[in-house]
Amino acid sequence: MKRVAVLGATGYSGIELLRLLSLHKDVAVAAVSADKNAGLPVDSVIPSLKGFYKLTCQKIDQLFDTDFDVVFLALPHEQSVSVCRKFLKKNTVVIDISGAFRLKDAGLFKKWYGFETIAELSASAVYGLPEIKREQIKKARLIANPGCYPTGAIIPLAPFLRKGIIKNTGIIVDAKSGVTGAGRSPSQDLHFPEVSDGFKAYKPASHRHIPEIEQALSEISQGTSITFVPHLVPTNRGIFTTIYAVSEKKKITLQELEEVLMEAYKDEPFVRIIRSPELPNVNTVKGSNFIDIAVRLDERNSTIILFSAIDNLVKGASGQAIQNMNLSLGFDETLGLTLPPVFP
Amino acid sequence: MKRVAVLGATGYSGIELLRLLSLHKDVAVAAVSADKNAGLPVDSVIPSLKGFYKLTCQKIDQLFDTDFDVVFLALPHEQSVSVCRKFLKKNTVVIDISGAFRLKDAGLFKKWYGFETIAELSASAVYGLPEIKREQIKKARLIANPGCYPTGAIIPLAPFLRKGIIKNTGIIVDAKSGVTGAGRSPSQDLHFPEVSDGFKAYKPASHRHIPEIEQALSEISQGTSITFVPHLVPTNRGIFTTIYAVSEKKKITLQELEEVLMEAYKDEPFVRIIRSPELPNVNTVKGSNFIDIAVRLDERNSTIILFSAIDNLVKGASGQAIQNMNLSLGFDETLGLTLPPVFP
Amino acid sequence: MKRVAVLGATGYSGIELLRLLSLHKDVAVAAVSADKNAGLPVDSVIPSLKGFYKLTCQKIDQLFDTDFDVVFLALPHEQSVSVCRKFLKKNTVVIDISGAFRLKDAGLFKKWYGFETIAELSASAVYGLPEIKREQIKKARLIANPGCYPTGAIIPLAPFLRKGIIKNTGIIVDAKSGVTGAGRSPSQDLHFPEVSDGFKAYKPASHRHIPEIEQALSEISQGTSITFVPHLVPTNRGIFTTIYAVSEKKKITLQELEEVLMEAYKDEPFVRIIRSPELPNVNTVKGSNFIDIAVRLDERNSTIILFSAIDNLVKGASGQAIQNMNLSLGFDETLGLTLPPVFP
Amino acid sequence: MKRVAVLGATGYSGIELLRLLSLHKDVAVAAVSADKNAGLPVDSVIPSLKGFYKLTCQKIDQLFDTDFDVVFLALPHEQSVSVCRKFLKKNTVVIDISGAFRLKDAGLFKKWYGFETIAELSASAVYGLPEIKREQIKKARLIANPGCYPTGAIIPLAPFLRKGIIKNTGIIVDAKSGVTGAGRSPSQDLHFPEVSDGFKAYKPASHRHIPEIEQALSEISQGTSITFVPHLVPTNRGIFTTIYAVSEKKKITLQELEEVLMEAYKDEPFVRIIRSPELPNVNTVKGSNFIDIAVRLDERNSTIILFSAIDNLVKGASGQAIQNMNLSLGFDETLGLTLPPVFP
Repeated sequence: MKRVAVLGATGYSGIELLRLLSLHKDVAVAAVSADKNAGLPVDSVIPSLKGFYKLTCQKIDQLFDTDFDVVFLALPHEQSVSVCRKFLKKNTVVIDISGAFRLKDAGLFKKWYGFETIAELSASAVYGLPEIKREQIKKARLIANPGCYPTGAIIPLAPFLRKGIIKNTGIIVDAKSGVTGAGRSPSQDLHFPEVSDGFKAYKPASHRHIPEIEQALSEISQGTSITFVPHLVPTNRGIFTTIYAVSEKKKITLQELEEVLMEAYKDEPFVRIIRSPELPNVNTVKGSNFIDIAVRLDERNSTIILFSAIDNLVKGASGQAIQNMNLSLGFDETLGLTLPPVFP
Repeated sequence: MKRVAVLGATGYSGIELLRLLSLHKDVAVAAVSADKNAGLPVDSVIPSLKGFYKLTCQKIDQLFDTDFDVVFLALPHEQSVSVCRKFLKKNTVVIDISGAFRLKDAGLFKKWYGFETIAELSASAVYGLPEIKREQIKKARLIANPGCYPTGAIIPLAPFLRKGIIKNTGIIVDAKSGVTGAGRSPSQDLHFPEVSDGFKAYKPASHRHIPEIEQALSEISQGTSITFVPHLVPTNRGIFTTIYAVSEKKKITLQELEEVLMEAYKDEPFVRIIRSPELPNVNTVKGSNFIDIAVRLDERNSTIILFSAIDNLVKGASGQAIQNMNLSLGFDETLGLTLPPVFP
Repeated sequence: MKRVAVLGATGYSGIELLRLLSLHKDVAVAAVSADKNAGLPVDSVIPSLKGFYKLTCQKIDQLFDTDFDVVFLALPHEQSVSVCRKFLKKNTVVIDISGAFRLKDAGLFKKWYGFETIAELSASAVYGLPEIKREQIKKARLIANPGCYPTGAIIPLAPFLRKGIIKNTGIIVDAKSGVTGAGRSPSQDLHFPEVSDGFKAYKPASHRHIPEIEQALSEISQGTSITFVPHLVPTNRGIFTTIYAVSEKKKITLQELEEVLMEAYKDEPFVRIIRSPELPNVNTVKGSNFIDIAVRLDERNSTIILFSAIDNLVKGASGQAIQNMNLSLGFDETLGLTLPPVFP
Repeated sequence: MKRVAVLGATGYSGIELLRLLSLHKDVAVAAVSADKNAGLPVDSVIPSLKGFYKLTCQKIDQLFDTDFDVVFLALPHEQSVSVCRKFLKKNTVVIDISGAFRLKDAGLFKKWYGFETIAELSASAVYGLPEIKREQIKKARLIANPGCYPTGAIIPLAPFLRKGIIKNTGIIVDAKSGVTGAGRSPSQDLHFPEVSDGFKAYKPASHRHIPEIEQALSEISQGTSITFVPHLVPTNRGIFTTIYAVSEKKKITLQELEEVLMEAYKDEPFVRIIRSPELPNVNTVKGSNFIDIAVRLDERNSTIILFSAIDNLVKGASGQAIQNMNLSLGFDETLGLTLPPVFP
């Protein structure tokens, strides 16, 4: 059994890691941190997990001297920066779920996040999107787990950029996320009655995930640029992403477009291509590590439209982190992640 | 007191007409039709309205020989076609909330709706968007009340097309609607557990409101073409529309863009411009006839982003129909429509 | 025009007062307080009301020297206690929406609220439930507006206790409230994802509304005692109350029970009796000042079951406060409150 | 590997059986029926399960001649009656999720269900509530899987009736269910906008689960009688049950009451006792086979209050059916059911 630690266990990503890891046969959670709840049994702090863990929450600094095979950082960005080095030991892989080490360009990071990361760590970190970086992930010591929106945007776009089927500018990414994506800290904006029966855009063309998406896609097609607007859906889980791109091909058909997706992802265990006339829906991936993708062609405007649905806490965060852990530890990539979606 | 009839009183648009008309001091609802509930008191069929009306539901054909000042058709498209002429009398104005007479091109109608309308009526009908067609509405005998999505898309786009600030092609309209927009007939797709916790796109680049939006915008800028994808939000009311357009101006600023909106709509009683850094939210227009609009500039991509929020049953249907009635009867345009939004 | 002030304008009760008062033809809102937003235009702080008020938020103490006809206190309990006397002037009626002055027994207040009220004010205050206290309300200078749960429980129970049809002990009140009842301050418990998809009881047999309900019912039937459990429904508005009482009559019929309700409330403008086989639903009173009530008989167990539905922010708070204001100012009791429910 | 069949695979209970069975290592789903979708791949009909099954939906009568170890009937009551005998073969255990064979008294069945069951089968069926009937379940050939409401009511009540701590009359069961409990067939009542933002009681003191609950409890305390009112919560999954019973003990304490529960269920794998001051919540059992229970004492009224939370589709239906299957096949009772709840 490999020993792992979950830091930030009582946030939504941490809870989700614990939910999923309880089903993993080759890994044991050896320690959990939750600064505010230090000293309390983790299963009293997370009532859904009552009976699943006998661990006591610790403060992060109590874990600096313990050895783990894998350490998951489900912490605020700033805190990931401040503790990451403490866990980057010889035999430990660190999987950071925050955005702290995702951007290769430290200046860009400063601009979008408003504080400094550790440039050297960002430089060495591997971006943990297995569908794009599988081989590098296997060898990484620090894995920067992708953001939820980037996961939903990059996977559908990559094959079309790779084949030059769409322009790499003028791409519109209109994303709609459930509220768990905003984390567990209460705020006026996320108070139940402010969200329920509402629907809004936020941070239009100014969200931190923009440089992350562009960085990943530019590795495929140099100079890729997107306009990105996220929206808040009055529901808990799920990101639905609608992407509009300009076709470079005059005469492509819907069937050819679907074949691009099917060919690109035919061996991917967690990518499901939804063929016309069906379309993805967040309620058919909920609780699972799948990303469901579809494509359509608006022939009237030579526009290619892509759709994806993920559970932001699974494929968009903790499930993908476990997928990365599996790759890193040499396990079957799907271990502990074979749960079907919970519908309805 | 003017006498009006509400046909299709027990659908969501019909119920909303009755809710709003009960507050109108110069109009009396003289008759309601509801074929399936004919013979029953309307306030037993619509429990929210218990005590507000003493009318009995009738079959539509029982109303052919009665005279009304205004007849609202809150009927399925096909039924509007089949009964409209019966009510188009010398002194009666017909306001059709269906899509039956919105498209000037009868061939286009056939293509998108799959059946024939009455070309002659469509030709004479006035498109009932007061912000665009106020003067014609005043004189119309048949008013084609706009669709909910077109209302949310045309009002924000019109000023920018009129001034040549955006290209009239490559416009992306990504709209998100509550479930009441789909009407009151039960179906598997709209069964509560299928919608709740879900989020999906439907009819991408193939929704009937596409030609309606393009027709209205092409009157402003010949040849306007849009890519339109509607989505279903697990909530009752509200349409949030996010629109992406290519800027024709190299050096325009956000402030200039906001001034375009403010100038265009400064005298409009139901258009509210939401200035940066605020953005619209469907929960601040709910139950009211307002359309809240904002604009942003994605300078990195020369993309202008527009946002609008409406209550699909009010400004997107019945409230706008009453606004049209007020114009038609020479009343103050806001009569019966001055309710503030219900928040939260 | 009478001049009123709304203190605590940016909480849910305050917002609802402003929504409803904007529709009242004989009253003008002359001042609003909102300590945290002092200096800002009220309609920028409450986006739903944009354009409805030209007032600027003030600090409460800025209003001590101004004269108003009516002052609404939509404040925390403690703050009502601390400022009430400042507004109780010769020609001013104070309507307190908090619980500060509802309990006649100051010791009981201390026990349930954990702090002291002003016994003398509580003693002189009139409990503002018009269906029970109309005549006293007309003459009151301080009106203690009822709690939301008490409104939903007292109105259905009163007629049956008055006629001795049910026992006054062993009464079970099982209430289910939307989240706005918990106020607008963000907290972990009311963070959107914690509430959505959840359902729970809270403060079982220990909620502050217990002594309030028992006090009001004991004026009708000395010694009335209830077991009260409130629950949180993942929705914004509405309280549904299910009440179980032991029948004192061996042979009463459902029809006789319904007649008790109809007779008791036949002249009440805001009480609607829902006859079998129909039942109330919070979605048919939403946005309105109605309380819908029904009764059933469980003959197998000699149990009488009562049901009520209210909008907690209207009949359960701000609407009832305006009803009290109307009584106090000698207006028609329904002025400004004739809006139909918003369905769906 | 044992071979099982799931009849009625595309209803919510059927889908949930397939979700859970995909995780069961000793059982293979050998056939599924879905009359309306016969001939289609089951994973195209249930998009959430895409990739999990390679089976084709069949008509029920195509399965009459196949041998299975276990047959799950996730069918309407009437259809269970009509096909049950076809599957009750020598080596087959039938687990019926409908209500067809739950009531021992065929006359009572007729009265509450309005049609005839097969008295002989009802007589031989074992009521599949493992916490009460574990040993009989192991030997049963026909297992009548409990209703969702009965599961939530019987488990908390049984220990207190067994010990004579509460009266067996005057018990109030006030239950609140998510919408999936009403099945997957669309209807006006369950159309999204009719449910969302609503809350209502239905079938008060007249629901079919009353005789089922009374039958089970009367085996513990002869003559137990309940008043039962179910309510509809605008959410998908979960039943929260609040139970009020009269204490027979003058001086019992909360601690003693909690000990009754802990003692009764200390070896039960799926019963979790939630100790004061915590209370259950449906959102901490969602997706899992747990029932979370708590107790409170209303000393002022000698009333004992019980609370339970289940996922109606798991412990209230398909999870419990698999628990019964495990018992029947001699497996560890928890096989395939060790998933933690999905929170939030």
